[in-house]
Amino acid sequence: MAVNLNVQDDQSLLAVAGVKLMVAEAGIKKADRKDVLVIQLDKGNTVAGVFTQNRFCAAPVQVSKAHLGTGVQIRALVVNTGNANAGTGVAGREHALQVCKALAEELACQPEQVLPFSTGVILEPLPVGKIIQALPARREASWGEAAEAIMTTDTVPKAASRTLSLDGVPVVLTGIAKGAGMIHPNMATMLGFIATDAAITRPLLEQLIKEVADQSFNCISIDGDTSTNDSFMLICSGQSANSLIDSVDHPHYAPFKAVLLDLARELAQAIVRDGEGATKFITVKVEGGRSVAECKDIGYAIARSPLVKTAFFASDPNLGRLLAAIGYAGVADLDVDRLSLYLDDVLVASAGGRHPDYEEADGQRVMQQSEITVRVVLERGSADATVWTCDFSYDYVRINADYRS
Amino acid sequence: MAVNLNVQDDQSLLAVAGVKLMVAEAGIKKADRKDVLVIQLDKGNTVAGVFTQNRFCAAPVQVSKAHLGTGVQIRALVVNTGNANAGTGVAGREHALQVCKALAEELACQPEQVLPFSTGVILEPLPVGKIIQALPARREASWGEAAEAIMTTDTVPKAASRTLSLDGVPVVLTGIAKGAGMIHPNMATMLGFIATDAAITRPLLEQLIKEVADQSFNCISIDGDTSTNDSFMLICSGQSANSLIDSVDHPHYAPFKAVLLDLARELAQAIVRDGEGATKFITVKVEGGRSVAECKDIGYAIARSPLVKTAFFASDPNLGRLLAAIGYAGVADLDVDRLSLYLDDVLVASAGGRHPDYEEADGQRVMQQSEITVRVVLERGSADATVWTCDFSYDYVRINADYRS
Repeated sequence: MAVNLNVQDDQSLLAVAGVKLMVAEAGIKKADRKDVLVIQLDKGNTVAGVFTQNRFCAAPVQVSKAHLGTGVQIRALVVNTGNANAGTGVAGREHALQVCKALAEELACQPEQVLPFSTGVILEPLPVGKIIQALPARREASWGEAAEAIMTTDTVPKAASRTLSLDGVPVVLTGIAKGAGMIHPNMATMLGFIATDAAITRPLLEQLIKEVADQSFNCISIDGDTSTNDSFMLICSGQSANSLIDSVDHPHYAPFKAVLLDLARELAQAIVRDGEGATKFITVKVEGGRSVAECKDIGYAIARSPLVKTAFFASDPNLGRLLAAIGYAGVADLDVDRLSLYLDDVLVASAGGRHPDYEEADGQRVMQQSEITVRVVLERGSADATVWTCDFSYDYVRINADYRS
Repeated sequence: MAVNLNVQDDQSLLAVAGVKLMVAEAGIKKADRKDVLVIQLDKGNTVAGVFTQNRFCAAPVQVSKAHLGTGVQIRALVVNTGNANAGTGVAGREHALQVCKALAEELACQPEQVLPFSTGVILEPLPVGKIIQALPARREASWGEAAEAIMTTDTVPKAASRTLSLDGVPVVLTGIAKGAGMIHPNMATMLGFIATDAAITRPLLEQLIKEVADQSFNCISIDGDTSTNDSFMLICSGQSANSLIDSVDHPHYAPFKAVLLDLARELAQAIVRDGEGATKFITVKVEGGRSVAECKDIGYAIARSPLVKTAFFASDPNLGRLLAAIGYAGVADLDVDRLSLYLDDVLVASAGGRHPDYEEADGQRVMQQSEITVRVVLERGSADATVWTCDFSYDYVRINADYRS
C-alpha cells in the first residue's frame, strides 16, 4: 500500500566506515524474525539525538538521554522492535539498563556507553530475558537488513544513502527509519538513525540534529498521535579524512548540512509514504505567514483532519473541509478573506470563497493523483512551512483495530 | 448505528408557548425531504446564542451575530440543511441576507429580526432561490419533525423536553440538535436550539448560554474537526407566568439552570451517540488537575486520538495508547509517575506503568461494553473536566469518503 516507495537494494546502501551493524532474532513478538538491531561504533565517534516530547516518554528514551548526558563515548546502540517498553514505570527503566549492561559486557565497555531504543506495543513489560539471550547470537548485517530489523507495522523497510565530496574528500551518509502509525511531530512513532563517516564536533552535531529534525522528521503527521518512543540519532564515526567540522562557519558545514537534510527528508517522507493504510502522499505548504509557527499550525490542522484525509482517500474535491481546517487552526486574527488555497496548480479559493474560475473537474483531476500539494497563501507575512501527510483509509482502521492480534 | 439513542416520540416532546415551528421542502440537496425549518417567535421573547470560533465562520453565522448584535426583537430563525453557505465570501453573506429579507416580508418584520442558519457541504453556493421559493409553502410542524428537518448525516433526529416548577409555575424546555461529523468544541458541526417559555432577561440569558455551552456542547468531540457553522441558540418566549429571572441571585436561576444544563447535555451527548460510524459512547473524566483547561486538554487528546478510537472500535484493551495521548496533551510539567488511569472501575495504570493487579481480562471486559468511562486522576490539584466522544470505525471512513456522492 505504500505510496511510491520502493525497497532500496543493498547495492545502493553504502557502508559507513566505523559503523558495524548486527541483527538478531529474540522472538519478542513473533518467532524467527529479526527484531534486534545493534549498531556498534568504533572509538572516535560523536553521537547526538533528539527525542519525543511526550510526557510518557518510554524507559529507553529516558535511559538514552541520561547516557548521552554523561558525555561518555558511545560504543553501541541497541534497538528492539515488538515492545516499546513505554508506560512501564521503574521496572521499564531497569529493563532498559539490563539490556545496556548485557551488551556492554559483550563489548567490554561501560553500560553508559550503550544507548537503548524500543518500538512496539505500549504498557507491556519488556521481555528483557529474550533480548539479552539473543545478543550473543547477533550476526553482521547490511543496512537493508538493519532497516528490516526495526520495522513494526511498516510495509517497506526505509533506508537511503548519500555521498558528497568535501574538498575532494569523499563522505558517506546512510540512514534508516521506521514508523507508520502514531506519527505526529515532536516527534512521530519513529526511529531514525543516520550514520556518516564525517568528522564533526559534538556541540555542533547537537545543534545540527535539532535543525535537521525540525525540517524533516518534525514536519510529518500520519494520525496526529505523538509517540512515547520517538528518537532520531545522528552518528558520526569521524573516519573520513575531511577536516573536522567545528562551527557553522566552517566551509564544509553548509554543504554537509544540505545533504544531511535531504537524506533526513527522504527518510521522513518514506514514513509518510508508508503511513498506515496510506494511498496518497500529501504535501501541505503554507506560505506568507507572520511566523513559521502559525504556518505549521495551519499545516498540521489540515494534515490531521480526519475529514480532509478521508476526502483525499475518496479522491473527492470536497475542499470546504480544507477551509474549515484552516479556520480552526488557532490563528486568532487570521483574515480569511485574504488567503488563497491551491490544489497543485489549481486556484480553488480566494476572497473567503470559491474562486470564480474554479471548476470541480480541475479539483477532481488533482484529487485523483497519488501525490498532491495543498498550498495555502496567507498574505500576512513572509514565513512559510511545509508538512507532509497521507490520506485516511479503511485500512488505517483495519490496521489499528487489529494491531495487537 | 447510533449508540443507545432512540427517537423521541412526539408525545414526549412538549410544545413551548410562543414558539411556532414550520417546515418546508426546498429540494436543496435531495427532492421531497424536509430541509428548511422556520422557528417563529411571538413578541416579548429573548434570544441568545453562541457560535463557532472557526475563522472561516459561515455566512449565516456572521449574519446571525450581526442581527443579534443590533439588539432588536427576534421574530424568526430560519435553518436550511444540505448546504452550509460557508467558504462563500461576500456572495454567501448576501444570500443569507436575502433569505432573511424574504422571510421578514412574509412575517411583516425587519430582516434584522430574522436569524439564518445553514448546515451541509462547504464551499458551494447556497441555492438561495430554492429556499426563498419554498418559504411560503411552509407548514406547521412538531418538534420531532423540526429535529428531522435539520439532519445531515445524522441517523436519528435529536430532541428532548424537560419541565420544572418554579414556585408552582410550570415551565417547559424543549430542544433539538443536529450533528454527527466535523464535531469538536468551540464548537461542533452542530446546530442546537433550545426553547423555553420561561421569562429571563437578555443579559442574563447571554451569560447563561455561555456557561451551559461550556459544560455541554463544548465538551464533545467526534473527529476533532471544528465546524464553520456551529450555533447553539437559547430562545425564551417569556410566556410562562414565572417571575422574571433577572440575576444569578434570583431564587429560580439555579434550578432553571440545572434543568437547562441537563437538557443541553442530553442533546450534546445525543450528537456523540450518533457520531459518524460510532459503535461506542465514551466518557472521559479527568480529575485532580491544576486547572479545568489542562483537564480538558488531556480529555481532548484522548478523545481525538485515532489510535485510541480505533482500539475502542476493536474492543482491544491496547491501553498504552491512552497513556501516549495523556503524555502528548501538552501539559508540560505533568508527572506521569503520579497519575492513575481507570477504565470504568478497573485500575489500569499507576506509578508510570501498568498496575500490578491489572489483568487484561478486566480491561477486555470493559472494552466490550457499548458505554465506557475512561478516568484519569492527575493528583496535582482539584480541577476536573469531562469530555464525551465515540469510537472510530470503518463506517466513519465510509461515511466521509461518500458524503457528497
